Amino acid sequence: MFAFVPLCHLHTQSRPSSHFHIQKDSQSGYFVGSPTRFYQARLPDRKNQKHGYCLKTRMAVQASEAETRKSYIGYDKQGFLWCEELKVMDILESVGTTPFFLYSKAQLVSNFESYLDATKGMDAIIGYAIKANNNLSLLRILSSQGSGAVLVSGGELMLAEKAGFDLHKTVLNGNGKTMSEISLAVTKGCLINVDSEFDLEHIIQASKQVGKKARILIRINPDIDPQVHPYISTGLANSKFGIRNTHLKWFLDRIKQEQDNLVLVGVHCHLGSTIRQVKIFKDAATIMLDFVSVIRKAGFHDLHYLNIGGGLGIDYERQGDAIPTPGELVASIREKVKEAQLTLIIEPGRSIIGNTGMLVSRVIGVKSNGNKEFIVIDGSMAEVIRPSLYDAFHWIGMITPNSEELSKFDVVGPICESADFLGKDRKLPRPEEGNGMAIMDTGAYCYAMASNYNMRPKPAEILVDGKQWKYIRRRETFEDMMHLCDQ
Amino acid sequence: MFAFVPLCHLHTQSRPSSHFHIQKDSQSGYFVGSPTRFYQARLPDRKNQKHGYCLKTRMAVQASEAETRKSYIGYDKQGFLWCEELKVMDILESVGTTPFFLYSKAQLVSNFESYLDATKGMDAIIGYAIKANNNLSLLRILSSQGSGAVLVSGGELMLAEKAGFDLHKTVLNGNGKTMSEISLAVTKGCLINVDSEFDLEHIIQASKQVGKKARILIRINPDIDPQVHPYISTGLANSKFGIRNTHLKWFLDRIKQEQDNLVLVGVHCHLGSTIRQVKIFKDAATIMLDFVSVIRKAGFHDLHYLNIGGGLGIDYERQGDAIPTPGELVASIREKVKEAQLTLIIEPGRSIIGNTGMLVSRVIGVKSNGNKEFIVIDGSMAEVIRPSLYDAFHWIGMITPNSEELSKFDVVGPICESADFLGKDRKLPRPEEGNGMAIMDTGAYCYAMASNYNMRPKPAEILVDGKQWKYIRRRETFEDMMHLCDQ
Ligand SMILES: Cc1ncc(COP(=O)(O)O)c(C=O)c1O
Ligand SMILES: Cc1ncc(COP(=O)(O)O)c(C=O)c1O
Repeated sequence: MFAFVPLCHLHTQSRPSSHFHIQKDSQSGYFVGSPTRFYQARLPDRKNQKHGYCLKTRMAVQASEAETRKSYIGYDKQGFLWCEELKVMDILESVGTTPFFLYSKAQLVSNFESYLDATKGMDAIIGYAIKANNNLSLLRILSSQGSGAVLVSGGELMLAEKAGFDLHKTVLNGNGKTMSEISLAVTKGCLINVDSEFDLEHIIQASKQVGKKARILIRINPDIDPQVHPYISTGLANSKFGIRNTHLKWFLDRIKQEQDNLVLVGVHCHLGSTIRQVKIFKDAATIMLDFVSVIRKAGFHDLHYLNIGGGLGIDYERQGDAIPTPGELVASIREKVKEAQLTLIIEPGRSIIGNTGMLVSRVIGVKSNGNKEFIVIDGSMAEVIRPSLYDAFHWIGMITPNSEELSKFDVVGPICESADFLGKDRKLPRPEEGNGMAIMDTGAYCYAMASNYNMRPKPAEILVDGKQWKYIRRRETFEDMMHLCDQ
Repeated sequence: MFAFVPLCHLHTQSRPSSHFHIQKDSQSGYFVGSPTRFYQARLPDRKNQKHGYCLKTRMAVQASEAETRKSYIGYDKQGFLWCEELKVMDILESVGTTPFFLYSKAQLVSNFESYLDATKGMDAIIGYAIKANNNLSLLRILSSQGSGAVLVSGGELMLAEKAGFDLHKTVLNGNGKTMSEISLAVTKGCLINVDSEFDLEHIIQASKQVGKKARILIRINPDIDPQVHPYISTGLANSKFGIRNTHLKWFLDRIKQEQDNLVLVGVHCHLGSTIRQVKIFKDAATIMLDFVSVIRKAGFHDLHYLNIGGGLGIDYERQGDAIPTPGELVASIREKVKEAQLTLIIEPGRSIIGNTGMLVSRVIGVKSNGNKEFIVIDGSMAEVIRPSLYDAFHWIGMITPNSEELSKFDVVGPICESADFLGKDRKLPRPEEGNGMAIMDTGAYCYAMASNYNMRPKPAEILVDGKQWKYIRRRETFEDMMHLCDQ
C-alpha cells in the first residue's frame, strides 16, 4: 500500500487566468515512494491536462533526497487519498461531520527540516510565521523542533509563549502595533521590527515604561516586485509597510539618541508571499546588505541580524512546477550573509505549513444550470477564502477511486453568494452525493482567515501522525457561536 | 445640538475605480434635521470633493417625509459624530478598547418601517436576510417589529427561532442545504427554496422522514444583470444558484408525483446585492410573473408567493446618490403582484442593516512611504473585509472636530498584508494618534464575515438607543480564541 504510482484517472485541472505570472515546468512525471514514505505525486503537465489526457506510464524521476520535496499526502494506485499511513476516507468515516481540516505531522516536520538543512553551517533563526496557521498543537510541534516564531499581534505573542517558543527567537512585526503589544514584546525580549517613525516612537515609549532595552530591526522597503498577487505583495514602494528609505538617517539619529532604550540589532524586509523565484530573494539580500554597510558605518556595531522575511511559494498546482526549495533559497544568499558576519533570520509561513493540510469535504450534489456544471460541497469560502480573495488556486481531488470520465466543473460551496467557490473549470470525474473531496494545500492562510459567514461553525482540525489521528481543535457548535452575545 | 448642518471641513473622499458602474447624482446638499432626529448628511458632490472643495452654503432640500431616508447617525456643526443622542466620542471613551461596532436602534427600526410602509395595502412578508448581520439583539428588534427572516443555514434557522421570528414567515435558501438543515426546516414549517434537482430530491426525502409536507418555492434564474460586483451577482445564467429554466417541466412533474410530500407555494429569484436601479427588480418581476402563469396553468393552484429576493443597495458613498427607496422598489411592481393575486416576499439584508452600523477605531499613527501617506488604524480587514473582497467603498470620517487641511491618505489596518485596507486615496484631515475614526455603513456583511486573522479578537458590538448604549456582543478574549483548541 505504500508504493506510490501514477493514477490514470487523476482528475486534471487547469488554472483560470490570474493577476500574476505562473512558471511552468516542461517535465512531468511522478516520484515513486519508498516503503515508508510517499513522495510528491506530480500530475501530468498542464497541456495534457487541458485535453483531459492522463499519462499511463510510470516514471521514476531521478532526484536526490535533498532536492526532492517529500510528500506524506498522496494517492495509492487504486485511487485512495492517504495522509501518512491512513486513508483519508477512513478518517472521514470516523469523524462523520464535514468539512474538517486534516494535517500531516510528518509533512510539517519534514518541511521544517528542509529549512534546518538549508541553514546548516550558518547562524540562523527560522522564524515560523504564526499568522499562516496558529493551531496550538501545530505550533508545539514546531517549537519542539527548535523553530523561532514571527508574530504580528499581541495575541500571537501570547500564543507563542503558550506553545513553548523561545521568545528570544521571536520577532514582532507590523505596521500598526499597539502600545500594549509593544510593551509585551519588550518585556518578553522579542525582537521588534520598526516599521515607521511613529512605530519607533512607540517602541521608545514602551521600553521606557517597561524599563528594558528594546532589541530592534529596521524594516526596509527594498522596492522589489515579487511578482505575486497585489494583496500579498508587501515590499514595493507603495506598500504600507516599512520605513521610507530616504529617511534612514532620521531613524539612525533617533536610535542613537535613545541608546539607553534601544539596541539596533538588524534589518528586515518582507517582499510578499507565494514567491516562485530565488532571484527575488537574492536581489533583496543584495540591497539589504548595502543598507547593513551603511548602518554599520554609521556606528551601529550591534547589528548582526539580516531578516529577509518569508514568502517562498509552494506548488499549489501540483504540476511539478519548479518552485525553489528552502535549500536553493538559502544557498543563493548564504555566502554573502556569512561574509557580512550576519545571522540570518527567515520568516517562512506558507512553505512550512501550506502543504501539510487539506480541507476534507463531502459532495452535497451535482447540478447544471445549462451552461455550467457545479459540484456543490459542504466546504466553503468561510473555511477557504483564498480563491475568492486572492484569485488563488488549490488543487482539488476525490478521496476515493472514481472511474467516471472527466468533465469540467466549478467546485462551489453552499454559501449564498457567488464569491463562494473553491475551484473553477476543474476537470474531475462526476462524483456521487456524499463522496469525499479534498481541497489540497490548505494548511496556510485558511483556518487562520476562517469566518462564521452564514452562521457556519469553524470546522474541526485533525492531525495525523503515522497510523494515528486526533482532534487538535474541535468543531465549533451553535452555542460556541452564540457565547459572546447578550442572550 | 440636534440641528444638523453642513460641515465645511467634512473630509471628502473619491472612490477608486471599480468593477461596476456607479451612478452619480448631480445634486448635492444636506438634509436638515428636526429637533428629535438627524437626517442624512449629504456630502458635497464627487467633482467638488476631488478638488477638496467644500460647499459652504446650507441647503435645505425639499423632500417629503416618505421620500427622505432618515438618518440617526450624523455630524453636528462642531464636527462631532453622533449616533442618535450620543456623541460617538463619549461612547469610545467609556468603552476604551477599540475597534468596536456601533449600531443605532432607531435607524434599524426606521429602515424596517420603510419596508412596512412600502408594502402597506398589499400581502407581503418582509424577510430580513440574517446573513447580513446575525447579532441576536438586532434580530430580536426586527422580529418584534414583525419581520420575517431569510435563512441560509441550519445555524441561522436555530438563531431565528431563538430571536423569536415566526418561523412560518421564514425562508430557507441555498444551493447546498444539507439533509439535516432541510429536515429542520420542514419540521419547523419554514418555506424552502428549491435550488436544483438534487435539492428537490433532498427535500422530498426530508419531508418523508419528518412526515410533514414541505412548503416549497422554485428558485428561478431570471438571467438579468444586476450591474454589481461579480461576487454578489447571483441571478445570471452562469450562476451556481437556481434551477435550469429549461428544466422547469421536469421540476413540475416531479413535484406533482410527490404531492403527498410537497406543496408548491411560490417562485423565488435573487439577482444580487448592492443594486441601484428599480428597473432591475421590475424586469425580474415581469419574467417571474410569466413563470407564475406557466406554473399555474400546469395546475399548481397553491402558488401564491412571489419572492423577488433582496439586493437593494445603500448610499455607501454618502454623496446623495439616487439609490431607490424600498417604497420606489415596491411601487414599481405592486400592481402586477396584486393583479396576479400573489403575496410578495422580499428579502432585504443590506438595506435594513447596512447604514445602522459603523466600526469605531482609533488612529495608531500616520506614516508616509515617500509616495503615499497612510493613516494606520486599529480596525482592519478582519472586521471589514468588504473593501478587499468586493472592492467596496465605505465612507470614513473622524469622530471629533479636526480643522487640519485635507490631504490624501490610504486608511489601512495593522494586519500584515496589503489586502488590509479600509479605504484608498481618501481626502481627510491629518489626524492625531488616538483620534477616533468611523468606518461608516458597516452594519451589513462586516461582523458577519469577520475572522480572527492575525489572532485578532472579534470586536464588541454596541447598540445605541436614544441616550443609552449597551453591549450586545462582548469583545472576544484570547481565551475565547483558544477554547476550541486541544490545550
Ligand atoms: C512580515 C512577514 N513575515 C513573514 C510572513 C510569512 O509569509 P509566507 O507565509 O509567505 O512565508 C508574512 C506574511 O505575509 C509577513 O507579513
Ligand atoms: C437569497 C438571498 N436573499 C437575500 C439576500 C440579501 O441581499 P441584500 O443584503 O443585498 O439585500 C441574499 C444575499 O446575498 C441572498 O443570497
